[in-house]
Amino acid sequence: MTLVGIAGLGTVGTATATLLHAQAKDLNLTLKCVSARSKDKQRDCDLSSVIWCDNPLDMVDQCDIIVELIGGADGIAKELVARALCADKSVVTANKALLAANTDWITHPNMYYEAAVGGGVPMIRTVKAYLQNNKITRIRGILNGTCNYILTRMQQDTLDFETVLAHAQSLGYAEADPTADIDAHDTAQKLIILCALAFGQTCTESQLPTQGIRDINDATGIKLIAEATLGDDNVLHAHVAPMDANHSPLQHIHGVDNALLIDCEPLGTLTLTGPGAGGGATATAVVADIIDASKATA
Amino acid sequence: MTLVGIAGLGTVGTATATLLHAQAKDLNLTLKCVSARSKDKQRDCDLSSVIWCDNPLDMVDQCDIIVELIGGADGIAKELVARALCADKSVVTANKALLAANTDWITHPNMYYEAAVGGGVPMIRTVKAYLQNNKITRIRGILNGTCNYILTRMQQDTLDFETVLAHAQSLGYAEADPTADIDAHDTAQKLIILCALAFGQTCTESQLPTQGIRDINDATGIKLIAEATLGDDNVLHAHVAPMDANHSPLQHIHGVDNALLIDCEPLGTLTLTGPGAGGGATATAVVADIIDASKATA
Repeated sequence: MTLVGIAGLGTVGTATATLLHAQAKDLNLTLKCVSARSKDKQRDCDLSSVIWCDNPLDMVDQCDIIVELIGGADGIAKELVARALCADKSVVTANKALLAANTDWITHPNMYYEAAVGGGVPMIRTVKAYLQNNKITRIRGILNGTCNYILTRMQQDTLDFETVLAHAQSLGYAEADPTADIDAHDTAQKLIILCALAFGQTCTESQLPTQGIRDINDATGIKLIAEATLGDDNVLHAHVAPMDANHSPLQHIHGVDNALLIDCEPLGTLTLTGPGAGGGATATAVVADIIDASKATA
Repeated sequence: MTLVGIAGLGTVGTATATLLHAQAKDLNLTLKCVSARSKDKQRDCDLSSVIWCDNPLDMVDQCDIIVELIGGADGIAKELVARALCADKSVVTANKALLAANTDWITHPNMYYEAAVGGGVPMIRTVKAYLQNNKITRIRGILNGTCNYILTRMQQDTLDFETVLAHAQSLGYAEADPTADIDAHDTAQKLIILCALAFGQTCTESQLPTQGIRDINDATGIKLIAEATLGDDNVLHAHVAPMDANHSPLQHIHGVDNALLIDCEPLGTLTLTGPGAGGGATATAVVADIIDASKATA
């Protein structure tokens, strides 16, 4: 029986706890501990048989798998992950800011982070599978569902950026503070994770040329594209910018969908497309990682 | 050290042996035995340090992983796979005819057959990963690169079927006897494999409504589509036929590319696209399976 601890009980954490409850018996998993800022908050999941830890660090000794859903590039999230890895526990996280700031962890064998990139699209495990016997030479993708939704609506309905952003916020597709999405920090962090994994090369957000979609007036054919190419002498060229996607397979990716094109040798180009967010996609990806971590530790 | 035996040294078998030689040390694998009809045939790979078995069945006791690349739904290929599974060895195969005729093997934990479906597109491992915590409700795909190439050329160049078929044969995209591809037997076998895996439901080729592309005059918007939907009461509706792909993500899949759309709950629809054949895609998928089998037995 593998023991799981979840730190952070926001939308994803609560959905993960609910999914685990439903599937735990079949999977030989037990949700042993949880931790969150407020114990008394009303939550839509049954935690009556679970140990509550006021300090998430107290979960490390009691669990085999630590699920970090606190968020943030440092602070308690970083301390929890560092301590869990040091204790040879497995860590599952959806925290792209943390991984982009601590790139050593991206290739750590005990780290699972499918939910940090691509929402419900299995980008991480596909890149890992391809690396086994292919050389990846380029990755290109649409990695942010909010921006893709905004650009799609601007184009299809001939609306301006501010109007669509307000609409996206009212639908819950964009956050009240949309900076991380529309200024492309979120996309940049995901590209940093993919580059560390696919090419073994690390860069910081400040080193990565990044342009968001705030100044787009005419979105015709435009997608926010993250791209990294391995040039001669193994030099990596990476950037995030709104680009003309015509004549690219990315032109057909609409709404909140995400997509990744992986160019590799000898295989050629593989394209993955699917829901970038919503519908429990992130929690589903977290649970898939918990299952994988559990199999690896069995 | 995991010991591998390859039965069948045609194009895929020879390419697999060459890839294994190049990567074996890193992977802790050894190509121990090979078997093929003619020992004396000139082949483009070094087999000097490998045991030659006149009878492929003699490899079972000497190897941990049997790679069956003989082909055919019965005869020695079937006997070899049956004996290897009985001896608790792992089996890697690209033989869709064999699996479609022996559907029990599709869900056998020691069977690996990524190369049997989708060429270089990782359809099998993606379906398996999704099954862990999703319910798959529908699969749709373009599963035969030869037919997709022919339909694409017919449409783009306004050519008739016979002209494009002859051209595809001259380029090596279609075989001298193209029946298995153009009459959709190949696609039907792949759909049978996907249905057994995704839905746990088996059907035979004679039960599956199958129509090929031989009688297509106007290929505008037409793709050869394999589709299976889980209806009410868990009844499976499956068929293979040339269909109008307009307004479907499959309309953008051209040339020898393959694609699979997986509808699942709660996640939504995932699309996989990539090279269906050529460029060592099949051998690369075989080696990926050998690596997975080796990890599972370690």
